[in-house]
Amino acid sequence: MGFSEELSKKAAFAEEVLKKYTPSPSGFEGRVLEAVEYSVSAGGKHLRPVIMKAVFDMYGGEGEYIEPFMAAIEFIHNYSLIHDDLPAMDNDMYRRGKKTTHVVYGDGIATLAGDCLLNLSFETAMKAFDLIPGDNGETGRNALKDRVIKALRILFDKAGINGMLGGQSADVDAEKRGLEMDKDRLMYIHENKTAALIEAALMTGAVLAGAPDGDVKVLEETGSDTGIAFQIKDDILDVTGDEEKLGKHVGSDSENGKVTYVTLFGLEKAEEDQRKLSLSAVNRLTSLNKDSEFLKDLISSLTDRES
Amino acid sequence: MGFSEELSKKAAFAEEVLKKYTPSPSGFEGRVLEAVEYSVSAGGKHLRPVIMKAVFDMYGGEGEYIEPFMAAIEFIHNYSLIHDDLPAMDNDMYRRGKKTTHVVYGDGIATLAGDCLLNLSFETAMKAFDLIPGDNGETGRNALKDRVIKALRILFDKAGINGMLGGQSADVDAEKRGLEMDKDRLMYIHENKTAALIEAALMTGAVLAGAPDGDVKVLEETGSDTGIAFQIKDDILDVTGDEEKLGKHVGSDSENGKVTYVTLFGLEKAEEDQRKLSLSAVNRLTSLNKDSEFLKDLISSLTDRES
Repeated sequence: MGFSEELSKKAAFAEEVLKKYTPSPSGFEGRVLEAVEYSVSAGGKHLRPVIMKAVFDMYGGEGEYIEPFMAAIEFIHNYSLIHDDLPAMDNDMYRRGKKTTHVVYGDGIATLAGDCLLNLSFETAMKAFDLIPGDNGETGRNALKDRVIKALRILFDKAGINGMLGGQSADVDAEKRGLEMDKDRLMYIHENKTAALIEAALMTGAVLAGAPDGDVKVLEETGSDTGIAFQIKDDILDVTGDEEKLGKHVGSDSENGKVTYVTLFGLEKAEEDQRKLSLSAVNRLTSLNKDSEFLKDLISSLTDRES
Repeated sequence: MGFSEELSKKAAFAEEVLKKYTPSPSGFEGRVLEAVEYSVSAGGKHLRPVIMKAVFDMYGGEGEYIEPFMAAIEFIHNYSLIHDDLPAMDNDMYRRGKKTTHVVYGDGIATLAGDCLLNLSFETAMKAFDLIPGDNGETGRNALKDRVIKALRILFDKAGINGMLGGQSADVDAEKRGLEMDKDRLMYIHENKTAALIEAALMTGAVLAGAPDGDVKVLEETGSDTGIAFQIKDDILDVTGDEEKLGKHVGSDSENGKVTYVTLFGLEKAEEDQRKLSLSAVNRLTSLNKDSEFLKDLISSLTDRES
């Protein structure tokens, strides 16, 4: 099976899991659940749950208790998109070619839909405790419970103010107060806003499968390299990209006076760093001595993409 | 020690716990943490952590692992206040005599501060696992871990779309779409928006102390009675209250054409139901055969207050 076929298959599985854990709208609270469903079913690529499951498989993980975590990380991603798109932050009207949640449901319901998804992500991840296989004896079950607890802590550490939310906070604060975007702040934002949840996906997949701590650390660094390379590539494509392939206007960053990796370091250094980080991520995976072909292809497809 | 002295003492302890778990602002994400600190230190009464700890003590609970839960429930309460006050929802400029978070920090940072508090509530409650006493042997520790897991599930179920968030969703949806506020919707809102977190406080305090399931169920019903009685009293005071004692304008509900328990059922029935529910809550506590004097006084002070 070729890479893109395998990716489609894994994304379809993630989609199925996500549907299973997305509540159906009903009752007086139904309107917010409609907004949740609208956002979740907007056709993302489900990269984070795909990465999580691929690592889980790579370490021989077995059992359905990975599934609530797959849904949870996608809920976290979706809540962040809904809130980022609000007029109070980026004020984006379209995402993935569809109207954003607040445009359809209003700012109040969209804010609550984001809150609902974040709360739902905890509630859902906690369901992993119900899916711990019963055939491992008391000691085996307690060991799996400890893995779930560890994975919960990693996921919500990376989602919170020490991770994704910290990156978003630094970004919004700089924009709203007109603070200078220097190299340190930009790296902090790239590292946290994008990389933190990719790190969480790689780490939780490993932890749930019982991977050793040393490997979890290597995967965290892999996620960091990948996330930063992905963001640098984003900044590069806004300068060198093909509008037709990208499906969006090129040059908008410089037109908006936006400070990016390219404006701070120049195109040549940006391309060099993106290549280095991408290679570093792949080399880290190689060092684990596992069958990581799919993950390597996936990471390369993110960091070396043309669109 | 009289009731009000005991309440002050317990509230001061809750305040101390809260301070211990509130992160100090620093770094690029510092602005959002300043907004978090501003909201948390605005001088609430810390009723939910006080209730939680009182139940824990009532069941002979021992150990510090209750403390992260005390902070977590107050973080949840504060996140809900910050988001409710946003222009996208109630657009309130003042709370507890201070400017609301979004007035001071802007809507974007306030939205992120709410998100931060919700995520932080989960991160903080998870710290209970670190505080499980080590002197109970492996079996004892695993039993306490199971209590923490159970309490986590209750807390975030009651905070989410099946609890507080559901109530807020029904309220905001009715207002934004101009839906009719009938008895069923109003009861749903009172039950969930206010009562759910009081239920959570009572239930988690009991679960963490190892109370039997039957008692936890009675405490859930106690919280429901208390929360609804509290809300009905709120509606009553807006008609009959003493402006001086309340420290706010009376009659604003009817001036704003707001549908309340009093407008739907009449003042007499509202007062009757509030008394019945208040008595029911106290009787439920009596039925537990524990030393519940403080909790009874506290509940009566909420449901029978004059301000």
